[in-house]
Amino acid sequence: MAEAIRHDKTARQLRLLSDALDSGRLGPVRRLVNTLSPAEIGNLLESLPPDQRAVVWGLVDPEDDGEVLVHVGDEVRESLLADMDTDEIVAAVEDLDIDDLADLVEDLPDTVIDEVLKSMDRENRERLEQVLSYDEDTAGRLMNPDVVTVRADTTIDVVLRYLRLRGELPEHTDHLYVVNRRHQYLGRIALQALLTQDPNTPINRLIDDEQPAINVNESSAEVARKFSDHDWISAPVVDDNNILLGRITIDDVVDIIREQAEHQALGAAGLDEDEDLFSPIRRAFRRRLLWLTINLGTAFLAASVVSRFEATIEKIVALAVLMPIVAGMGGNAGTQVLALAIRGLALGQIGASNMWVLLRKELAVALINGLSLGLFLGLIVLAWYRDLALSLVIGTALTLNLLAAASAGVLVPVTLKRMGFDPALAGGVILTTVTDVMGFLTFLGLASLILLR
Amino acid sequence: MAEAIRHDKTARQLRLLSDALDSGRLGPVRRLVNTLSPAEIGNLLESLPPDQRAVVWGLVDPEDDGEVLVHVGDEVRESLLADMDTDEIVAAVEDLDIDDLADLVEDLPDTVIDEVLKSMDRENRERLEQVLSYDEDTAGRLMNPDVVTVRADTTIDVVLRYLRLRGELPEHTDHLYVVNRRHQYLGRIALQALLTQDPNTPINRLIDDEQPAINVNESSAEVARKFSDHDWISAPVVDDNNILLGRITIDDVVDIIREQAEHQALGAAGLDEDEDLFSPIRRAFRRRLLWLTINLGTAFLAASVVSRFEATIEKIVALAVLMPIVAGMGGNAGTQVLALAIRGLALGQIGASNMWVLLRKELAVALINGLSLGLFLGLIVLAWYRDLALSLVIGTALTLNLLAAASAGVLVPVTLKRMGFDPALAGGVILTTVTDVMGFLTFLGLASLILLR
Repeated sequence: MAEAIRHDKTARQLRLLSDALDSGRLGPVRRLVNTLSPAEIGNLLESLPPDQRAVVWGLVDPEDDGEVLVHVGDEVRESLLADMDTDEIVAAVEDLDIDDLADLVEDLPDTVIDEVLKSMDRENRERLEQVLSYDEDTAGRLMNPDVVTVRADTTIDVVLRYLRLRGELPEHTDHLYVVNRRHQYLGRIALQALLTQDPNTPINRLIDDEQPAINVNESSAEVARKFSDHDWISAPVVDDNNILLGRITIDDVVDIIREQAEHQALGAAGLDEDEDLFSPIRRAFRRRLLWLTINLGTAFLAASVVSRFEATIEKIVALAVLMPIVAGMGGNAGTQVLALAIRGLALGQIGASNMWVLLRKELAVALINGLSLGLFLGLIVLAWYRDLALSLVIGTALTLNLLAAASAGVLVPVTLKRMGFDPALAGGVILTTVTDVMGFLTFLGLASLILLR
Repeated sequence: MAEAIRHDKTARQLRLLSDALDSGRLGPVRRLVNTLSPAEIGNLLESLPPDQRAVVWGLVDPEDDGEVLVHVGDEVRESLLADMDTDEIVAAVEDLDIDDLADLVEDLPDTVIDEVLKSMDRENRERLEQVLSYDEDTAGRLMNPDVVTVRADTTIDVVLRYLRLRGELPEHTDHLYVVNRRHQYLGRIALQALLTQDPNTPINRLIDDEQPAINVNESSAEVARKFSDHDWISAPVVDDNNILLGRITIDDVVDIIREQAEHQALGAAGLDEDEDLFSPIRRAFRRRLLWLTINLGTAFLAASVVSRFEATIEKIVALAVLMPIVAGMGGNAGTQVLALAIRGLALGQIGASNMWVLLRKELAVALINGLSLGLFLGLIVLAWYRDLALSLVIGTALTLNLLAAASAGVLVPVTLKRMGFDPALAGGVILTTVTDVMGFLTFLGLASLILLR
């Protein structure tokens, strides 16, 4: 999809809301807000500056508070929680699904957690403690223990009677799970099968055991990959002994997929995907400062290269004019390769076996691009400065820097990943350091060798 | 999620496959490939260089060919189709769902499309033509016409008998749709309700009309937003007269959500999200060349600013050493603001009402960052060049450039979007042009004014 993503509805709501807030009439604001779903309210709160956010948050129906908290980023969530007292928080979260509650709990103050635990019945408290015992970013933290199980040695008719007695199924239930006496997972029965097959059909004839269960310790990235590769709606979660623990549904997985993809875009700018658009200035300042200081360090590295050539620049001041072009073009070309490589690594598409093929391809592209652009740049410089040697130097330097950029674009993220670092976070800084240093070095170095002879 | 996304399973398969391919034993390759789901095969094919890709593609079970084609990016799809003759393509695609087929059709040669249409029965052909009549990136192109409808004036028992006669429901059916005589959409019945309620319950007592139907002309981005805001699994699609046309399921929406998010990361580097990791060199070269030429133009703009100050640089060559720092730091700071703003725009979180608040916040952050980093940079330059005036100039220039970067980071994407351009594609180029020009201008300009007095 080439066009920008438009969410004009939110923008319209935002304008209406802002007008109503400006006029100070809170009645219309309350009515507007409470026509929205919790996710929409969350999106709206994320769009509001702190003071307006606090006003609107106070107008949200307390029944929706918990779901709204689930649907906002970590930073915005903190700002919302700061506006609530313990009783309000406990009331907001006590009706949440266990997986959502587990997601929230870590952001709550300890005293509030105690109160929440106290307010829960024993069964739910044990369930929550179980979910919390798994590592973050694993299947265990995504699952909901609320599953409907049946035995294999029965018929559709018996199951139908059981379901009518039960009265309601957990949200997004599309399968019932078949377990044995020890609660081990045997397979699943589609609701569809219960509806379309003869009521006398034995359950064990309908069991679908093709979809493997997810192990509770699998990473959430792996869970997301499986859902997306197999078009699953839900999947059972088991422990190492195949005991059924819960199930994961697609709506939780969609959030992970979105976060993964946002991570590359924001990580490249040194940002966290949970960053609040309107985070307090002091906080934003501190986080940005760290990133800019790292970049300042790499800029000095590049400047120190230039300083080696002060004598050359003093004699040919055109070099100072042209050198940012060589460095900058390397950065642009390298960023393209880097973006492709980071996505390839994230999708598991780049390994030891094809990395060299990719590098060869990118070097070939860089060589052709370098020669074409080098010729073009050389001609412009020739027309501008009427100096053939200078135009040869800049053309050659550009070609060499594009080759360096292609190498760094492939090798930097692959190496970072092998060393256990996140290529999306550190890749860009290292790449532009390479292209700046190489750009200045090749251009000023060649100029010193050739032009000052 | 701060850690990189790991898909080690794919990487492992890739290594196994590559080893088997290298050894020339195709039996094990075929066995390995055919244990995978179509989406996994697609991912694997995307990871392979062209020659290996062609070999593996030839080994895929022809039954899976169609689904694999659905699951790869546009560019890879083209390379796979190029390896097939008309009969193979027709055989591959004839069993696909209508929405998937519609997605593929545009990539097929005209002669093949004719053959495909001829191979279909009339009903399916008409359905396909209907789906194709809607614009790309609308709900109409995402929907599948395969829906199960019931009437309101009946009971669960009658519906159950109908379903048992019917025998099977379309994939991912979680609701039946209730329509009137004119096939207008009235609401839906959850499969869950059919299973848990008394068989004598009249259908009209169970109708859930809370979830609004999607209009066939809504944009796919809007559809994705609704699914993700409301945790939908499926949704009915209607025309302007509320006639039920089909339904959209979450698995198609997941693909859109992923594409939207990838678009920001790759768009910033001037890449398309369908770009093939191993696209032919000539093709990659041509596309990259366009991007680099645009960037070359902006680099010349910055260089022309520097050239105005050649006389100044000739006298104080340290300026040439230090000027890339001021320009580069502006680019880094601006990129952070830009990334936040582009995401905010994509989510509809930035509008006329809060844009100025955002700009004020970012200017405040830039001012504090500029003063801190300016002081720090000034001290380093003082230690390096022992020139107080120079260190004052660079500190001031850095602060000014960070302010320019913050303004551009907010205003450039907002303006681009208002003008109908894609901020994710053009934002970065314009931003760095601003920060380069402003960086050189403030630093060299201040230096000329103060140091050469």
